[in-house]
Amino acid sequence: MFNEELRLEKPLRWGMIGGGRGSQIGYIHRSAALRDGLFTLVAGAFDIDPERCEDFGTHIGLDKARCYPDYKMMLEEEAKRHDGIQVVSIATPNKFHYEMAKAALEAGLHVICEKPLCFTVAEAETLKTIAEKNKLIIGVTYGYTGYQMIHQARKMIENGDLGDIRIINMSFAHGWHSEEVEKNDPGLKWRVTPEQSGPTYVLGDIGTHALYLAEVMMPELKIEQLMCSRQSFIASRAPLEDNAVVLMNFNNGAVGNLWVSAVNAGAIHEQRIRVVGSKASIEWWDEHPNQLVYEVQGKPKQLLDRGHGYLYHDDMAVTCDRIGCGHAEGLFESWANLYQRYAIAIDAMIGGDKETVENTWFPDIHAGLEGVRFIENCVRSADNGSAWVDYK
Amino acid sequence: MFNEELRLEKPLRWGMIGGGRGSQIGYIHRSAALRDGLFTLVAGAFDIDPERCEDFGTHIGLDKARCYPDYKMMLEEEAKRHDGIQVVSIATPNKFHYEMAKAALEAGLHVICEKPLCFTVAEAETLKTIAEKNKLIIGVTYGYTGYQMIHQARKMIENGDLGDIRIINMSFAHGWHSEEVEKNDPGLKWRVTPEQSGPTYVLGDIGTHALYLAEVMMPELKIEQLMCSRQSFIASRAPLEDNAVVLMNFNNGAVGNLWVSAVNAGAIHEQRIRVVGSKASIEWWDEHPNQLVYEVQGKPKQLLDRGHGYLYHDDMAVTCDRIGCGHAEGLFESWANLYQRYAIAIDAMIGGDKETVENTWFPDIHAGLEGVRFIENCVRSADNGSAWVDYK
Amino acid sequence: MFNEELRLEKPLRWGMIGGGRGSQIGYIHRSAALRDGLFTLVAGAFDIDPERCEDFGTHIGLDKARCYPDYKMMLEEEAKRHDGIQVVSIATPNKFHYEMAKAALEAGLHVICEKPLCFTVAEAETLKTIAEKNKLIIGVTYGYTGYQMIHQARKMIENGDLGDIRIINMSFAHGWHSEEVEKNDPGLKWRVTPEQSGPTYVLGDIGTHALYLAEVMMPELKIEQLMCSRQSFIASRAPLEDNAVVLMNFNNGAVGNLWVSAVNAGAIHEQRIRVVGSKASIEWWDEHPNQLVYEVQGKPKQLLDRGHGYLYHDDMAVTCDRIGCGHAEGLFESWANLYQRYAIAIDAMIGGDKETVENTWFPDIHAGLEGVRFIENCVRSADNGSAWVDYK
Amino acid sequence: MFNEELRLEKPLRWGMIGGGRGSQIGYIHRSAALRDGLFTLVAGAFDIDPERCEDFGTHIGLDKARCYPDYKMMLEEEAKRHDGIQVVSIATPNKFHYEMAKAALEAGLHVICEKPLCFTVAEAETLKTIAEKNKLIIGVTYGYTGYQMIHQARKMIENGDLGDIRIINMSFAHGWHSEEVEKNDPGLKWRVTPEQSGPTYVLGDIGTHALYLAEVMMPELKIEQLMCSRQSFIASRAPLEDNAVVLMNFNNGAVGNLWVSAVNAGAIHEQRIRVVGSKASIEWWDEHPNQLVYEVQGKPKQLLDRGHGYLYHDDMAVTCDRIGCGHAEGLFESWANLYQRYAIAIDAMIGGDKETVENTWFPDIHAGLEGVRFIENCVRSADNGSAWVDYK
Ligand SMILES: NC(=O)c1ccc[n+]([C@@H]2O[C@H](COP(=O)([O-])OP(=O)(O)OC[C@H]3O[C@@H](n4cnc5c(N)ncnc54)[C@H](O)[C@@H]3O)[C@@H](O)[C@H]2O)c1
Ligand SMILES: NC(=O)c1ccc[n+]([C@@H]2O[C@H](COP(=O)([O-])OP(=O)(O)OC[C@H]3O[C@@H](n4cnc5c(N)ncnc54)[C@H](O)[C@@H]3O)[C@@H](O)[C@H]2O)c1
Ligand SMILES: NC(=O)c1ccc[n+]([C@@H]2O[C@H](COP(=O)([O-])OP(=O)(O)OC[C@H]3O[C@@H](n4cnc5c(N)ncnc54)[C@H](O)[C@@H]3O)[C@@H](O)[C@H]2O)c1
Ligand SMILES: NC(=O)c1ccc[n+]([C@@H]2O[C@H](COP(=O)([O-])OP(=O)(O)OC[C@H]3O[C@@H](n4cnc5c(N)ncnc54)[C@H](O)[C@@H]3O)[C@@H](O)[C@H]2O)c1
Repeated sequence: MFNEELRLEKPLRWGMIGGGRGSQIGYIHRSAALRDGLFTLVAGAFDIDPERCEDFGTHIGLDKARCYPDYKMMLEEEAKRHDGIQVVSIATPNKFHYEMAKAALEAGLHVICEKPLCFTVAEAETLKTIAEKNKLIIGVTYGYTGYQMIHQARKMIENGDLGDIRIINMSFAHGWHSEEVEKNDPGLKWRVTPEQSGPTYVLGDIGTHALYLAEVMMPELKIEQLMCSRQSFIASRAPLEDNAVVLMNFNNGAVGNLWVSAVNAGAIHEQRIRVVGSKASIEWWDEHPNQLVYEVQGKPKQLLDRGHGYLYHDDMAVTCDRIGCGHAEGLFESWANLYQRYAIAIDAMIGGDKETVENTWFPDIHAGLEGVRFIENCVRSADNGSAWVDYK
Repeated sequence: MFNEELRLEKPLRWGMIGGGRGSQIGYIHRSAALRDGLFTLVAGAFDIDPERCEDFGTHIGLDKARCYPDYKMMLEEEAKRHDGIQVVSIATPNKFHYEMAKAALEAGLHVICEKPLCFTVAEAETLKTIAEKNKLIIGVTYGYTGYQMIHQARKMIENGDLGDIRIINMSFAHGWHSEEVEKNDPGLKWRVTPEQSGPTYVLGDIGTHALYLAEVMMPELKIEQLMCSRQSFIASRAPLEDNAVVLMNFNNGAVGNLWVSAVNAGAIHEQRIRVVGSKASIEWWDEHPNQLVYEVQGKPKQLLDRGHGYLYHDDMAVTCDRIGCGHAEGLFESWANLYQRYAIAIDAMIGGDKETVENTWFPDIHAGLEGVRFIENCVRSADNGSAWVDYK
Repeated sequence: MFNEELRLEKPLRWGMIGGGRGSQIGYIHRSAALRDGLFTLVAGAFDIDPERCEDFGTHIGLDKARCYPDYKMMLEEEAKRHDGIQVVSIATPNKFHYEMAKAALEAGLHVICEKPLCFTVAEAETLKTIAEKNKLIIGVTYGYTGYQMIHQARKMIENGDLGDIRIINMSFAHGWHSEEVEKNDPGLKWRVTPEQSGPTYVLGDIGTHALYLAEVMMPELKIEQLMCSRQSFIASRAPLEDNAVVLMNFNNGAVGNLWVSAVNAGAIHEQRIRVVGSKASIEWWDEHPNQLVYEVQGKPKQLLDRGHGYLYHDDMAVTCDRIGCGHAEGLFESWANLYQRYAIAIDAMIGGDKETVENTWFPDIHAGLEGVRFIENCVRSADNGSAWVDYK
Repeated sequence: MFNEELRLEKPLRWGMIGGGRGSQIGYIHRSAALRDGLFTLVAGAFDIDPERCEDFGTHIGLDKARCYPDYKMMLEEEAKRHDGIQVVSIATPNKFHYEMAKAALEAGLHVICEKPLCFTVAEAETLKTIAEKNKLIIGVTYGYTGYQMIHQARKMIENGDLGDIRIINMSFAHGWHSEEVEKNDPGLKWRVTPEQSGPTYVLGDIGTHALYLAEVMMPELKIEQLMCSRQSFIASRAPLEDNAVVLMNFNNGAVGNLWVSAVNAGAIHEQRIRVVGSKASIEWWDEHPNQLVYEVQGKPKQLLDRGHGYLYHDDMAVTCDRIGCGHAEGLFESWANLYQRYAIAIDAMIGGDKETVENTWFPDIHAGLEGVRFIENCVRSADNGSAWVDYK
């Protein structure tokens, strides 16, 4: 069961860049960080528009003086304070992630950054190096991996319940952009603009979420070759794709198939993962995240449900469990579980407790880096006539 | 969309009775109350065991002095403080609800109380009278009614999408107590002990939840006659039932059928409501609360999903909506939405803003009272050979 | 596996009364009877309209001379032939069932009759007596009970997989007659006319189907008391009901709840049965008849699927299985399985093989009689203010 | 509605090759052909084992003299009779299809052949040429395409309900051969033996079924390029695959993704097709064939159900409809619907009624040929390092 009493000596002093009023993802960051009393929000450069930043920041209870017109000023000013921020979350459009994360790390702050972490593997490596040097944590908000059933899946695979892993099918395929809706939607507009979004649209925007589910469930698996075919069904989005398929060969002989789309008309999310082993398969769907389908060959199909006594008593899974089974948990719990891990790791890092840092699972710099590497390989294949390429 | 910026001038000073370490329902009260910055937890008599109360209270950040060994002392001591609590939540076993709520109201505190509010209609009327006299709010935590889809349903019915209402089928039928598990489970033990639980077990424990869904969706409907058949499949539970069926005739000619059970082996919750009208039906299931089935006679079955633009733009429904559609919301959001309403109503009451109090929907004294009335009528029928009785 | 090679020395010479062109149920009788080469259709009084009878009969390959203007003539003329019919199926509106079945039995014919078999228990007893005297079979077409999963359910219960049976919930609740559609639909018109339909509409028309599922699954269970509440939401249908609920107490302490409706707007069939035991529950739904939900308390929900090796190797269940699992079977197979049993029993009866008659399960006179008894008891309760009545 | 009265002047005299006792697919051929009185089974070379052929044939009612020890003798002997067979169905392992179909066509018989029709496009072209010359019909038993909902889908797409077609995802991915079960299963043994099965296992065995669903729904779509990746997870099956993915680019810019597997542990069939258009998507699943999911972007998901008045009144779809909606139809109806079409076409061909032949939809030589072409292209890609190849 979730430990409601877990507290740090003092909540971490936390600031935000981006995620201002009306942004898609700002609220869930705050909801998650503040949920368990481990962070306290004390500063923000929430918005591209300084006035709106101040108005919003003060409305949610910040000191006006700590609502900054831009992130650089925030880093500077906060550094001067004895009670300045210790950690910053970055929830701006993709193009800013790298420079912001780098600046924050250089300012000695722990960083929680939205995906995709940056645009190139080289950039990710740089961030990693600075973080290591400065003994800082980088968390990346692959927000679906705080669900109990993801960790149940990981444990089942680790324990051999599925046998040898053979096939991994993943998808994140919604239909919201079946038409050229970016004309009236700035939150989408930047996503289909290469300078702001990076070398891909759907692959980076949602594809890495589904891929990371697989990484969490099967940490040992490595891609060896990959093939990516991508399309822009709304022509004006080219070169950025609104639909893509990626096939993968893994080091253990398994094969993967990832479908990513923003033009899967009528679908809401369709983020799914199915892992097929030599003995059994499991399947998870983010729209009903408290269930896990478990199919043993030759046996009746089973539906596992969050919170039950028959699940693995894995530390991560168990502490994700915030209420008796049957009650629906949702994405807010998943995110809060992640922010709890970030807090534990950051606190341990501050206290020099390396062991705890290492033993605390959370989507970290590695998660962020591998997401960027995946995108790079996809683009290389796609731009090469969708040829198979060696993964590097 | 949920308004993250909604704040009171000052968060309400809040205390808790019951809901201590290891209790079933304490955490969700705190999670809900603290979620949106509208309450601040400053005092508690959390536990029957004073030591555990203090240990727990201080662990979750309370001042040791305000972790009270019993609720009476809390009411007394807090009354002496200029910064004493303004509102108290009661999450103890049923038998205490009445005396605690009464004492709190008499101490001038707003009360948020668990269901069943008390054991008799007379008690409920007394609470109502005191609250009215003292200009206090009573909220009752029918925690499933903060979901967006419940309010979508209410709006659809109000707008005539279903035609005339004919049939209302309700259930809350789990299987957790198929065996005599109370032997090793104190949280269940009191539930099957009449002195502590009241005149019923499952009818009061879960039946009123399902009934209240119907009341929220169809505020105009009144029961005219009712018939209740109840059983104790685990004989030692008698006279308290672990299974019951209640049939109802409503004032508009509609009929109702409620199934409540703790011995529905293998079922997790099975809290469902189906409302059948002359034109269409809707169905809602609390284990997948973000969906609403909508079946228009002669048309394809439809599945409505939380957060979509095609839903009614009802104030209550819309402000329940905390994140883009497709993302799973859960029970924690539902509860937080209710606590938000309690706060708005309490704040308005404090400020003498009657209009806001009246226009703010929340599960109130009426909800609590009607739940108790329902139980009384059920018992009257059941004890009378399951005869039909006039509702009073 | 279904035995395709099972044949009688000679197919049974078969005639039909009713079930003519455009009738709802005529085709499935023919499809079922002719499916496995055990019957040959040689005569018919298919229609209230003699001309249409002849036109239809000859179109489906009958000798014109054996397309009779009315059933009495058919019985008379066929009796004169050395190759006259041996068995007759009755698929006319309810009011004719008794007189036709009686006349056929008196003419020495085996009878396969639609439900409800007749209007009163006394009539059913009479039919039973004549059949016994004349050594004739009566089959009643409770057509859903030829499905493999119904017999899997029966076997699971017999073997104690569910523990003691506690609760049986049944429904057959469609929405096709939510409006007064009988104005333009003769096939419904007679159903809501007491003289033609009998003392009930939905209870007899569909309710006995769901009840009979329970009887097949739990042959030992007997109703001891019953309560019936019925409504005519379309007022012109009174005294016949278009909606009803029946509660039952069984001899073993179990309770039952049956919902029958023709005004469950938007629902197609909703024929379901859920049997709850002290250890586990099962649930079956006729719209997806190849699946059976199996929920063991404290274990993951299981979905059993037709044709699998993990099912019971019960003779009845196994011989229902006409194709490898995964392939959808449907109502036509269920009916054909029943007609196969009728044929086996009739053939054995003709050959004087009592043992086979007794060992061959099929919906028989007992099934028909109990359906009628149920209706009588329901009406007695309903007409007595929905009071509980002792079952007789 | 299905026209039960449709009859030919005389039923077609029909023979079978293969499909003997214990075969997987023999019974459904007979059930389908004999269902509607359009064929009469008069001869057979059912089995590799002549004795078993005779034993089986006579048991199901054939004249002993017309139970042939091998198909050549059947063709020869039947040709001598004035009442010899007019049409033959071939249900033997794949390797015989070509020589048997060729011999039958050369003997002047119409042919209904199992898939895959043969091993090479050249062979298929030869069969086509002979059939055309001899004015004979070739039917191929893609048995899932007789379902009403497949034709509803076709009509929806034709009418533009989905907008422009963009994405077609197909699968047929079961798990029955997750282990090396062929050791004890002769029906599988031949399937993984190249000489008997052809150049592929799952691609030809099941993949072409799913592909043909797409062809029926979108007859205008043509593959332009294709990429196939295939695996033998049970190593001894190599070079034949037990798992494969095929990506396709279509002439209109749409993309396709087909997953075929016999090692999808725990899955029963998972034959699915999802067609995504610019406005809406549809999805069909063969395990619940009476439903079709219809998702219009921005609207609630809809579930279309067989037999309803809101479906298209397409001739093919409507005449597939054998019973009122809600009742489950199954694979036997789908096959019977196809055999009905074969009969109509064959009868018209015999009568020289070219128009009817042309206007009668059924899975024909084109369907068979395109299946073989697809396999050839898949193998070419797979054997070329899973490179993209131009379709030819
Ligand atoms: N983890 C997830 O599930 C998830 C979901 C959605 C978005 N995201 C990611 O979150 C990020 C933000 O996406 P969004 O959909 O919320 O975008 P959005 O366009 O809705 O909001 C962006 C916010 O950033 C602010 N902003 C922009 N430039 C800024 C700057 N230079 N300094 C300070 N603030 C600035 C904007 O004012 C706005 O408040 C993206 O990287 C996206 O990929 C992640
Ligand atoms: N709204 C809902 O969905 C919901 C769900 C579960 C329980 N409940 C209700 O909540 C109440 C508590 O149920 P629970 O399951 O959490 O019970 P529980 O037995 O798990 O916990 C009861 C808590 O109250 C404390 N307590 C007992 N007597 C006390 C006293 N005199 N003073 C102070 N604290 C005391 C106990 O120490 C414990 O911490 C009940 O009324 C129940 O009906 C409501
Ligand atoms: N077992 C089932 O699942 C099921 C389903 C539907 C109907 N039924 C039963 O089948 C019976 C027929 O129902 P239906 O819906 O097919 O009715 P219908 O009104 O559609 O058809 C009745 C048929 O009987 C013929 N008929 C009427 N009077 C006749 C007479 N005196 N002699 C000969 N033919 C006569 C009519 O011409 C018509 O062909 C009813 O008893 C009904 O309860 C059973
Ligand atoms: N359309 C479908 O859905 C479907 C489904 C299953 C099989 N099939 C196809 O049907 C064919 C048969 O498959 P199956 O699974 O029934 O195979 P099977 O091995 O179960 O049966 C094959 C039958 O053919 C007989 N046979 C073999 N050689 C013969 C010969 N030379 N002459 C006469 N009879 C001979 C065997 O005795 C046996 O009765 C295959 O081509 C397969 O691809 C199609």
